[in-house]
Amino acid sequence: MTQTSLDNLKKIYLKNQKEAIQDFFTFLKYESISTEPSYKPQVLACAKWLSGYIKQMGFQTETWETKGHPVIFGSWSKAGPDKPTLLIYNHYDVQPVDPLDEWKSPPFEPTIRNGEIFARGAQDNKGQCFYVLQALKILFEKEGRLPINVKLVIEGEEEAGSAGLASILPSKKMELKADYLAIVDLGIRTPTKPALTLGIRGIVTMDVEVQGSKTDLHSGSHGGIAYNPIHALVEILSKLRDASGKIAIPGFYDDVAELSKAERKELSLDFDPKQYEEMFGGKPTGGEKSFNPLERNWLRPSVEVNGISGGYAGAGFKTVIPAKAHAKVSLRLVPNQDPQKSARLVANFLEKNAPDGVSVKVTVHPGGGKPVHAKASSKVVKAFAEAFKEVYKTPCEFILEGASIPIVTELALASQSEVILLGIGLPDDLIHAPNEHFGVDRLEKGSLVISRSIELLGDYA
Amino acid sequence: MTQTSLDNLKKIYLKNQKEAIQDFFTFLKYESISTEPSYKPQVLACAKWLSGYIKQMGFQTETWETKGHPVIFGSWSKAGPDKPTLLIYNHYDVQPVDPLDEWKSPPFEPTIRNGEIFARGAQDNKGQCFYVLQALKILFEKEGRLPINVKLVIEGEEEAGSAGLASILPSKKMELKADYLAIVDLGIRTPTKPALTLGIRGIVTMDVEVQGSKTDLHSGSHGGIAYNPIHALVEILSKLRDASGKIAIPGFYDDVAELSKAERKELSLDFDPKQYEEMFGGKPTGGEKSFNPLERNWLRPSVEVNGISGGYAGAGFKTVIPAKAHAKVSLRLVPNQDPQKSARLVANFLEKNAPDGVSVKVTVHPGGGKPVHAKASSKVVKAFAEAFKEVYKTPCEFILEGASIPIVTELALASQSEVILLGIGLPDDLIHAPNEHFGVDRLEKGSLVISRSIELLGDYA
Repeated sequence: MTQTSLDNLKKIYLKNQKEAIQDFFTFLKYESISTEPSYKPQVLACAKWLSGYIKQMGFQTETWETKGHPVIFGSWSKAGPDKPTLLIYNHYDVQPVDPLDEWKSPPFEPTIRNGEIFARGAQDNKGQCFYVLQALKILFEKEGRLPINVKLVIEGEEEAGSAGLASILPSKKMELKADYLAIVDLGIRTPTKPALTLGIRGIVTMDVEVQGSKTDLHSGSHGGIAYNPIHALVEILSKLRDASGKIAIPGFYDDVAELSKAERKELSLDFDPKQYEEMFGGKPTGGEKSFNPLERNWLRPSVEVNGISGGYAGAGFKTVIPAKAHAKVSLRLVPNQDPQKSARLVANFLEKNAPDGVSVKVTVHPGGGKPVHAKASSKVVKAFAEAFKEVYKTPCEFILEGASIPIVTELALASQSEVILLGIGLPDDLIHAPNEHFGVDRLEKGSLVISRSIELLGDYA
Repeated sequence: MTQTSLDNLKKIYLKNQKEAIQDFFTFLKYESISTEPSYKPQVLACAKWLSGYIKQMGFQTETWETKGHPVIFGSWSKAGPDKPTLLIYNHYDVQPVDPLDEWKSPPFEPTIRNGEIFARGAQDNKGQCFYVLQALKILFEKEGRLPINVKLVIEGEEEAGSAGLASILPSKKMELKADYLAIVDLGIRTPTKPALTLGIRGIVTMDVEVQGSKTDLHSGSHGGIAYNPIHALVEILSKLRDASGKIAIPGFYDDVAELSKAERKELSLDFDPKQYEEMFGGKPTGGEKSFNPLERNWLRPSVEVNGISGGYAGAGFKTVIPAKAHAKVSLRLVPNQDPQKSARLVANFLEKNAPDGVSVKVTVHPGGGKPVHAKASSKVVKAFAEAFKEVYKTPCEFILEGASIPIVTELALASQSEVILLGIGLPDDLIHAPNEHFGVDRLEKGSLVISRSIELLGDYA
């Protein structure tokens, strides 16, 4: 019976596959980079196309305007009030593409090589959004209806901090109300082993500006006199962590919740440093030396300098002492750390450590995300775990994720739903980097996992 | 008699002033940025114009091709073998112009505001080159000839390290042979107080590359696992200097020659920190705390990070752990430090301090400049000091310069001449920075100092 259900779903998927990939390529071609204001028209065009696509599937659609990019909302409620409602979250915006010259094929011209689709957003998150839509198409084609009520919320600012969606959530509680919330923006650790993600880290970001003189200075005439703001910047940033990799800011770990032994046992914390090095070309030597790499990424907060700039960094050489130097810093947080409180600790530390002769100004960005940990006992976890097991023919493991989806906590609260995080991204998909890719085979697997999960949620009801 | 000579020179200058400024603007409009390969055609066009200008004045000219940009050489030897030969050095190339949006008028459209000419190269070194040429024009107009033999060497790669000129010097010893060499690329400390520069620091530059993983990584999925190369970079750079501002590399000061008390007394080492702060908006807190600011700039070596880059530094935010991070580092050296030896010490120190998990590669650039200190007792020093005194109506002081002209040592050796360094740049001319400028009044003063110095060198012969 189960196998039959899955087989039926697969048959329909394969029948439609060619058209689906064509549609996916259309979706990928939109240059929907949310963090760069100049791409606004392309982001809007992508939102419009997406809304039309969902409407054609049979959903009622709404476009929620925000101060930033619009949110696409879709709703199908004809399963009736006796059936549960599943809210599914995705995003249609993507990361910037630089360094552009490292892409083997242009980031917005999707190209298949060795069964992988290469494009910005191929995985994060257009790929994962698209197999959700295909899953719903399959179910509509199979029965002419869905077994439960389904809502879709697809935002356009995830890569920019989700401020737009966050700001309208209080006014959209009615529309969003659901029993379960599935955040489909995550990954599994190997291609053959399915996993459900029970938690993500929180995030908060900030800009650091160091100012010395009022204009750039000649480094010969002023070297030894002026305090170079690049020197000041490297000095204060190097103080963020001690020699053991621990964050060296007083009080930073005060709110960190330790997991119980039982909770820790539920997780698959095994890690192969050799495999990591082969995959990424770098050793897993970052973070606190006293924890294993997965503990450091899942259960411990981390601080990263995501960008640094100052002076002349182009071809040739410019003997300058710049007036200013800049850095972009992010924190990843674990329960029960508060994003703004943690960021202020870091900002105060950096500002306080400014050497005499330069000023340090840290701007903490609003819209940080709180860490989230889900419970392993709910129906929604069971349904997705069972669907994964059927599709992958092996039991589903429970993992955590070091990355952050800032909007998760807010969305769970606004929709009053139980939250589950999942996805079939892989660690080497190169999301946020040149040559991002997603497997053609995973479009199929994702469509089957989602459609089968929805069937099982209908069965459980 | 002296006053009459100067008056005569001034009368001729003023008669020609309008045309001179027009010619100067033509010179400034050439975008002769030597460090950026894409500007090659503009550099060549500038060289061609300059050569024609000098030829028209009555000089025999040669264009010396190099692997980089050409050197313009001019010679007028009709004063005869009994008269001395003065070789004057300038350069026609300029620094890059970024950040472009901080220029109040475009860098290659010279604009006069409040008696100052704003343009890239207005001072460094087109302005100082141009008043040399005007001085010669005045002398030709006054007597139809020059009182001594004069040679001009004007290169096009000073801002890029002078590799081209350096490489052809061994084959041009005959042409360059002179009694005196005047390097006209320097400055004085206040507008009313003339000065001759008895020494400059040496320089050597290098590129630092830190590599972690083979591609950029997501800072959520890898934060706490991967060693961020930006972290490694700020950590190793922050180790270059200790808390007292001293360079913390073992052996770095071993070769530094201390000045004798007599030599130190000859120099004007007074320094006003308040004035410095008002002028540049930053405190003079860089370098070794145990020396006063001018000692630190003139008599002590310094290390500066001139550029740093890594990750995403544009608008918005990108949560990336980059594969690589870069820095550009320069050293300023004093007698008897050797550029390549000093650079290797720094390079080895940075490479040796690479944290486990990242690799650090330092590329030391060839073509560094050795430090130079001139003697205060030669005829050429006396002639220029006297001319300065006549034009500025106050005695000339002897100073040093923290900046470097890498070619100076090589040129002095090749031409077998006694070297003097001078110029009328001012500390707030914003050379190498946006809004570089040079006073219209200084075009006149410079022309008079140079022409009068040449007359005096003729009188002394």
